[in-house]
Amino acid sequence: MASKIRLYVECDLGSDERVLMRREQAHYVFNVMRCKPSDTLLLFNGRDGEWQAKVVENTKSSGQLLCDHRTRSQEFPPDLWLLFAPVKGSRTDLIVEKATEMGVARIVPVRTSFTIVKRVRHARLVAHAIEAAEQCGGTFVPVIEELQSLDSVLSQWSVERNIMFCDESEANRKRSLDRMRRGPWAILIGPEGGFSESERKCIQSAFYCNTVSLGPRILRADTAVVASLTMWQKAFGDWR
Amino acid sequence: MASKIRLYVECDLGSDERVLMRREQAHYVFNVMRCKPSDTLLLFNGRDGEWQAKVVENTKSSGQLLCDHRTRSQEFPPDLWLLFAPVKGSRTDLIVEKATEMGVARIVPVRTSFTIVKRVRHARLVAHAIEAAEQCGGTFVPVIEELQSLDSVLSQWSVERNIMFCDESEANRKRSLDRMRRGPWAILIGPEGGFSESERKCIQSAFYCNTVSLGPRILRADTAVVASLTMWQKAFGDWR
Repeated sequence: MASKIRLYVECDLGSDERVLMRREQAHYVFNVMRCKPSDTLLLFNGRDGEWQAKVVENTKSSGQLLCDHRTRSQEFPPDLWLLFAPVKGSRTDLIVEKATEMGVARIVPVRTSFTIVKRVRHARLVAHAIEAAEQCGGTFVPVIEELQSLDSVLSQWSVERNIMFCDESEANRKRSLDRMRRGPWAILIGPEGGFSESERKCIQSAFYCNTVSLGPRILRADTAVVASLTMWQKAFGDWR
Repeated sequence: MASKIRLYVECDLGSDERVLMRREQAHYVFNVMRCKPSDTLLLFNGRDGEWQAKVVENTKSSGQLLCDHRTRSQEFPPDLWLLFAPVKGSRTDLIVEKATEMGVARIVPVRTSFTIVKRVRHARLVAHAIEAAEQCGGTFVPVIEELQSLDSVLSQWSVERNIMFCDESEANRKRSLDRMRRGPWAILIGPEGGFSESERKCIQSAFYCNTVSLGPRILRADTAVVASLTMWQKAFGDWR
């Protein structure tokens, strides 16, 4: 039950490395979770695996930790990107959270024809990804790109990377993921209202595109992210 | 783009049936969506399929609709239940929303050893299921039961119904859903902190129980609901 506190930090981790905590981390660890000197917690930075560290100093707004030993080796998610159209309200945060839990390497918010949201708060999305990584026990935080247009992303696309195109108008398509190509992948999830006819044509005409169905009902974007990632992870990823 | 308004109603639907709107529905349709007399919308009641209806009368707090023709036949989800331990905050609402979108017949909130939440607001969960059904284009709203203890649910279990047991401590288990038994199913998702040792033993000892892995990371309950339902729908359900 009592799961250990896990924190993402940016500095290097290794035997006897000292880690200075950020103000919000110190607040969480000392004021919320009531940690005291000598208590231990877990750290990861996306490079050096997971380390157990000990509280060696704490003030109200800061603290120092000392790395003791490595508890897990560094793990990276499969070479999978998520391209998604941001949606209104906190659903975009949920999408980032879910993609991190499910295991992606990179998250790319894209503006499509029917995307209503004009901006995303990049720092906020990064914070959500970090929190999700801390929570899910992973040792990696996906890279999150700035919002860019789907057109410009596709115009620079490397053709080695397959696209799993999740299109709600394709509910009856039988094509299954399992027969498709190996290699790096990206999953593309549209906004409410789906894709425009010209987007659909452009994407589906690419030989590296694989259109798949996410069932007979229309899924919200955050549901579609988890469903598509489940299908992909089961077929190609670290759920095999 | 302009997706039609869909409303769940309780009364019968059929040619020339008149439907009286509830106050919140009238507010939504006339004040928020600005519908006028003669405008059309879609209705379903979980029994008679989906019907197109026309606004024949509107006041500020009420309205009458007249059914015109059936637009879709009644569809029922597979005979699948979701048993889940309620979690804190709005995540329980999300679980109900996602289960409805993904297609389940019945939702059973269960109290397990490590469940912290003591009560669920049943009417609120029903409202979330209705909203999700309206949104996802389904013609069915799952039945939602009152909160009950997992012990009492299992003590009355009909052994014909398989249980897909999603246990985070089983990340390395290889067993795949595809080899398992046909028939009615229930998916069981635990609370944060997972299941107690005695719950785990009790469930896994039942011959109708199938333990499955949801990958190497620990998923939040609402993520686990979508992931497990995706696996099930792909193997046995209406995503095949």
